[in-house]
Amino acid sequence: MVYQENLRIQTRQGPSFEDITSKINDVVSKSGIKQGIVNVFLSGTTAAILINENESGLKADLELLFEEIIPEKRKWNHNATWGEGNAHSHLRSLFIGGSLTIPLKQGSLTLGTWQSILLLELDVRSRERNLVITVIGA
Amino acid sequence: MVYQENLRIQTRQGPSFEDITSKINDVVSKSGIKQGIVNVFLSGTTAAILINENESGLKADLELLFEEIIPEKRKWNHNATWGEGNAHSHLRSLFIGGSLTIPLKQGSLTLGTWQSILLLELDVRSRERNLVITVIGA
Amino acid sequence: MVYQENLRIQTRQGPSFEDITSKINDVVSKSGIKQGIVNVFLSGTTAAILINENESGLKADLELLFEEIIPEKRKWNHNATWGEGNAHSHLRSLFIGGSLTIPLKQGSLTLGTWQSILLLELDVRSRERNLVITVIGA
Repeated sequence: MVYQENLRIQTRQGPSFEDITSKINDVVSKSGIKQGIVNVFLSGTTAAILINENESGLKADLELLFEEIIPEKRKWNHNATWGEGNAHSHLRSLFIGGSLTIPLKQGSLTLGTWQSILLLELDVRSRERNLVITVIGA
Repeated sequence: MVYQENLRIQTRQGPSFEDITSKINDVVSKSGIKQGIVNVFLSGTTAAILINENESGLKADLELLFEEIIPEKRKWNHNATWGEGNAHSHLRSLFIGGSLTIPLKQGSLTLGTWQSILLLELDVRSRERNLVITVIGA
Repeated sequence: MVYQENLRIQTRQGPSFEDITSKINDVVSKSGIKQGIVNVFLSGTTAAILINENESGLKADLELLFEEIIPEKRKWNHNATWGEGNAHSHLRSLFIGGSLTIPLKQGSLTLGTWQSILLLELDVRSRERNLVITVIGA
């Protein structure tokens, strides 16, 4: 069995985080699939999907870390091409990735106590993001 | 067909590596599924799953690299929140990820000669880790 | 339904990029599967698979960034073991990863406008890479 649904998520200027755990759980419930996997795929190149603890200090730490190792203000070649000033957004997105696969058991995501699914906006402006959610199983 | 099993893996204080390739192969064998994919999912936020060469020099290099770009001893905000001193563990975990999907062909993982599946403990203490292994295919 | 195919891709000395989007689309077409997922898996430890914009400035930026945070010329332990001088290739590969899962809808990949699937060669020499493409769905 395959069930697929698109989600539209409004983000704020990056770096910013949206907790999408309950939205993914809702899709899983609607699918009627009890055991298998769900793939969360971001149709974009300047945001990312990750699983970790949704804690404000940790999110601030990630922003500081990004600014240190992949800083916004540098003479990036990509910014010379497009002038959007979001080369760092693409590069940060590359390292985290935008496709996540999570198991499904007895109709629920098998997330641990501290695991939340976070949509990480990395672009320099707010965006409406499109996610493709695919549930496969029995 | 869907087959699912949980694995409990005892780790040592991080950074440390456990080669779980043969354990995953065992689950694949038990599943009876010959062609498809296996998803290896870590139910935790301070460890990671990766595929690479299981070579001691390379593992030492990764530890040194982590300490350089995501050092343990820094005034991380997350450590101020919880006092567990493992903000760096979360951040390193974020960058590597904890969900891996591997193809299955003629009943075996299609790993290359040098590819091992490694559970990377990143927390400051030993842990018992829970992995959810999901095999999907025919 | 499961469909599986191997792709052989000739790369140039790394860092170098091969756009494999159309090749993956061809496999999806041949599979006859209309809705589900496709997993792209690299059987190697010194290259990576990523999705982002195929723009020359951005690719140059990634090369510069890699050289800064994971430099080629350093006394890496892995190079002392094997003498191939590609420890940095393994480490860069670890951070990006070599397994990607992409949804399939109405027989096509659900890639956004700017999303290309790139095989990133990270080794110090040209290689023939083996990819395992697995399509699962209905």
